Amino acid sequence: MIVPLAEKSAHLMEKVVLTYGTFDLFHIGHLSLLQRLRRLGDTLIVGVTTDEFNAHRGKASCTPYSERIQIVESIRYVDRVIAMERSDQKADDIWRYKVTILGMGSDWTGQLDALRSLCEIVYLPRTEGISSSRIRDALCAGNGLPPR
Amino acid sequence: MIVPLAEKSAHLMEKVVLTYGTFDLFHIGHLSLLQRLRRLGDTLIVGVTTDEFNAHRGKASCTPYSERIQIVESIRYVDRVIAMERSDQKADDIWRYKVTILGMGSDWTGQLDALRSLCEIVYLPRTEGISSSRIRDALCAGNGLPPR
Repeated sequence: MIVPLAEKSAHLMEKVVLTYGTFDLFHIGHLSLLQRLRRLGDTLIVGVTTDEFNAHRGKASCTPYSERIQIVESIRYVDRVIAMERSDQKADDIWRYKVTILGMGSDWTGQLDALRSLCEIVYLPRTEGISSSRIRDALCAGNGLPPR
Repeated sequence: MIVPLAEKSAHLMEKVVLTYGTFDLFHIGHLSLLQRLRRLGDTLIVGVTTDEFNAHRGKASCTPYSERIQIVESIRYVDRVIAMERSDQKADDIWRYKVTILGMGSDWTGQLDALRSLCEIVYLPRTEGISSSRIRDALCAGNGLPPR
């Protein structure tokens, strides 16, 4: 069967977007980032940090990995979820999943530039005034989130 | 055009499931409930409580309505989101959306039985050990959630 060139090119040019995160206390900032990343391509793969990886880097989430991945998997903009177990797995993932774009929040600006030889790197603005830490802090202060 | 009877019946028997909630600090208990409700039918409609309605009944959420509905809308098991503005809107919604099943968590057991003449009422078990209040309490205690 002869595949028309246009169709073949379209297939070859399928854009795979990859991102990573902990996604603790799933909030509007997470959702907005995933929505915008999905719009950059055709498929969005999300690496969710394992509890062991978080412990290794001295961080803890309120919700366990098993729950965080289920929530991220249930978001309609997400096509595939993988485990993030090591900080040095990004290059392997880019090769394995034929990633076109690695996209992270702007708190990562510059930190992944070493991977520019492998794929496009984009840093997207974070949602102003929201983060898992801020929710935790505001809740611990017992006064809910201040109005935004 | 003559529509085969089987096809016609299948269409007429489309099951619409309706539920209501605040969905503050979206967690695995919310997700599990939405997943199980969706499996009961063909379409899942979710009524999300407005901030005004919550204030009226003396409750407050950490996250505003505008964010809570966006997160619920992004869950792949949810087909439509509506506002829940009054406690007495359920009968109207059942008529308007041709609801087959009204499904709520088991904390509501018995409380909606008066609507059984309008549609089927089901109360599904809640996920053990998780609730928005429990997350808030655990975070306020500053020690995260206890292991489950």
